[in-house]
Amino acid sequence: MHEVAKGLAGIIVTETTASMVDGSAGHLTYRGYAIEDLTTYANYEETAYLLLHQRLPNLHELTDFQQSLGTQMALEPHFVEVMQRFPKNCHPLTILRTLISMLGVYDPTADDNSLETELHKAYRLIAYTPIFTAAWSRLRRGLTPIPPDKNVGLAANLLYMHTGLIPTPAEVAALNVYLILMADHSLNPSTFTSRVVASTDSDIYSAITAALGALKGPKHGGANEATMEMFMEIGNPENVPSFFTEQVKGKGRKIMGFGHRVYRTTDPRSVILRTHAETLAKNSDNTRWFDIAAGLENLALADPYFMERRIYANVDYYSSVLLYMLGIEPDLMPLVFAIGRMAGWVTHILEQRLENRLIHPEAQYIGENDRVWVKLEDR
Amino acid sequence: MHEVAKGLAGIIVTETTASMVDGSAGHLTYRGYAIEDLTTYANYEETAYLLLHQRLPNLHELTDFQQSLGTQMALEPHFVEVMQRFPKNCHPLTILRTLISMLGVYDPTADDNSLETELHKAYRLIAYTPIFTAAWSRLRRGLTPIPPDKNVGLAANLLYMHTGLIPTPAEVAALNVYLILMADHSLNPSTFTSRVVASTDSDIYSAITAALGALKGPKHGGANEATMEMFMEIGNPENVPSFFTEQVKGKGRKIMGFGHRVYRTTDPRSVILRTHAETLAKNSDNTRWFDIAAGLENLALADPYFMERRIYANVDYYSSVLLYMLGIEPDLMPLVFAIGRMAGWVTHILEQRLENRLIHPEAQYIGENDRVWVKLEDR
Repeated sequence: MHEVAKGLAGIIVTETTASMVDGSAGHLTYRGYAIEDLTTYANYEETAYLLLHQRLPNLHELTDFQQSLGTQMALEPHFVEVMQRFPKNCHPLTILRTLISMLGVYDPTADDNSLETELHKAYRLIAYTPIFTAAWSRLRRGLTPIPPDKNVGLAANLLYMHTGLIPTPAEVAALNVYLILMADHSLNPSTFTSRVVASTDSDIYSAITAALGALKGPKHGGANEATMEMFMEIGNPENVPSFFTEQVKGKGRKIMGFGHRVYRTTDPRSVILRTHAETLAKNSDNTRWFDIAAGLENLALADPYFMERRIYANVDYYSSVLLYMLGIEPDLMPLVFAIGRMAGWVTHILEQRLENRLIHPEAQYIGENDRVWVKLEDR
Repeated sequence: MHEVAKGLAGIIVTETTASMVDGSAGHLTYRGYAIEDLTTYANYEETAYLLLHQRLPNLHELTDFQQSLGTQMALEPHFVEVMQRFPKNCHPLTILRTLISMLGVYDPTADDNSLETELHKAYRLIAYTPIFTAAWSRLRRGLTPIPPDKNVGLAANLLYMHTGLIPTPAEVAALNVYLILMADHSLNPSTFTSRVVASTDSDIYSAITAALGALKGPKHGGANEATMEMFMEIGNPENVPSFFTEQVKGKGRKIMGFGHRVYRTTDPRSVILRTHAETLAKNSDNTRWFDIAAGLENLALADPYFMERRIYANVDYYSSVLLYMLGIEPDLMPLVFAIGRMAGWVTHILEQRLENRLIHPEAQYIGENDRVWVKLEDR
């Protein structure tokens, strides 16, 4: 009997130059640049360009890239007609998974895996994910989708198409920060899934559709949704101490958005998100959700149970508050996660193509052997 | 620097009791029963039941199962309307991937992963895959889909819905044999993909959609299509010797449908498929395709190059001839593969649920570190 590496924990399946997660130092870099620099100086498109092209764009290249995304942003009628018939209470990631798969149906270059064509498809996927997200958020509320404004960036466009209102610069900046922070995180489960599918030489739409299916799992995406629901249950900053005492300490209930399998210190993304959530809250005169989140975090930071076990706020904790203040309903939060992570997924697929080897581990058979056939009438 | 297990070759990720592949003996069993027994005594539904329920059904259980599949077989108008708009030259697996994802959109129980509900969804997936396949095969030819005949089994139904003709018992038997032989094959790439997605606790439609994406890869599914295209290029049994001498021996061209990474002897499925393809050929008075395949195989079996390297006909070799004689166009062959493999995919997903652990290997970062930010205007 051979050793079974359940979950493949600790096994290194590939090399990468896309991003580096240093869990003990609490440090995350994309192509060698710290997320602190990226969230201070760059927007989402610049970050996506960096991941895809392995270097920062100059002004001309960035403008070209943004224009290329803009010209691809269009919701064709065949998508709207299909979406209008979808049940409104369906899981939004099921909707996005289906629409991305259908995007492949309508792309005659879908099965051309050459680098140039694939880059074009990567742009297309980055451009369409916010389009589908905003359109579905409106259609399920009985509203007509709003066409994109091709003169603004991706974050501004998402908010505009979602709400119909021109967002404030602070809102656009906050969403850019969130999308940058979600853009890549080494070999997380959905990224691994996309590389497994790409390793069969299948097309990029197959790989992304599969990644969305993995993101849908409660063990992967969906934690920001659950975190926001917890904050809504608490309802008011005054209720935080009793929630912590009765539910968390008393009943052992988990704080959603706390704890991470890699970071053994503060998740560096959480620190940045806290700052931006606080700014948004103060600008909006509604500090309720931020105060609930910060109040609960402060209680945990002062509690030996959490500190001894090194359980800190993770990326989902403040991002739920940040997205909620931008008008994103909790069940749409995983879709905004997907918009950000799209840059990482397509980057890893392109990286997998460069030096591809079919990802194909084995199973150990532990069932019965040599069972003798019994005729149907004798069973 | 840690060791990188590229492709995860030789790494055991899970235990299984579904099927056992003995590559050196050329032996394949499902739940301990030899495929030789299953293809002699059972049909596809009985095999699917065995895989799903870990034991053979009695007559009552088998009848119930077949009726349950039959009552679920219906192509709702919303599927037909979407399919009518799809481009007819789209890769058929892209179509099936999208339709299976959409099947999840319309299933209000999609996100209930409890065993009982999941079994029901497994039946639904087994029932709908032939429906979608046959409907698409007709719609892309400009024909109307044919509703299923709820009084016949799955194999007979697929042929009836595809051609509109009542198939002969020999045709039904041959298709059953093919579907049984495709039903499971341990941890092949698409099955592994489905388990990776299921390991995030995502839903069964996400896992199957991902598996179809992996099957689409030329390194996985699609070999029967390529094999049939090779036989069509040869065109006539008389051309086999010159094809072998000039193309294979002279130019080093690969024989499609030859060679397997696990079997170091004859693929046991190929032996069974050869017999059934021969019977079909003799019954139909058109032995051309079988004669081409058998002639080419005989030349390879007499050639030291192939024998020294243990390169034998694999499952795709005679299955391409068998399916073609049943009226399946080459590019639809991967869909019939998917119909058979559906039993294995859903079985592995249910098995993964029983003792789940997130499948999450790591990547080794080999990129640059500590890159200093350069302002956009200075690049």
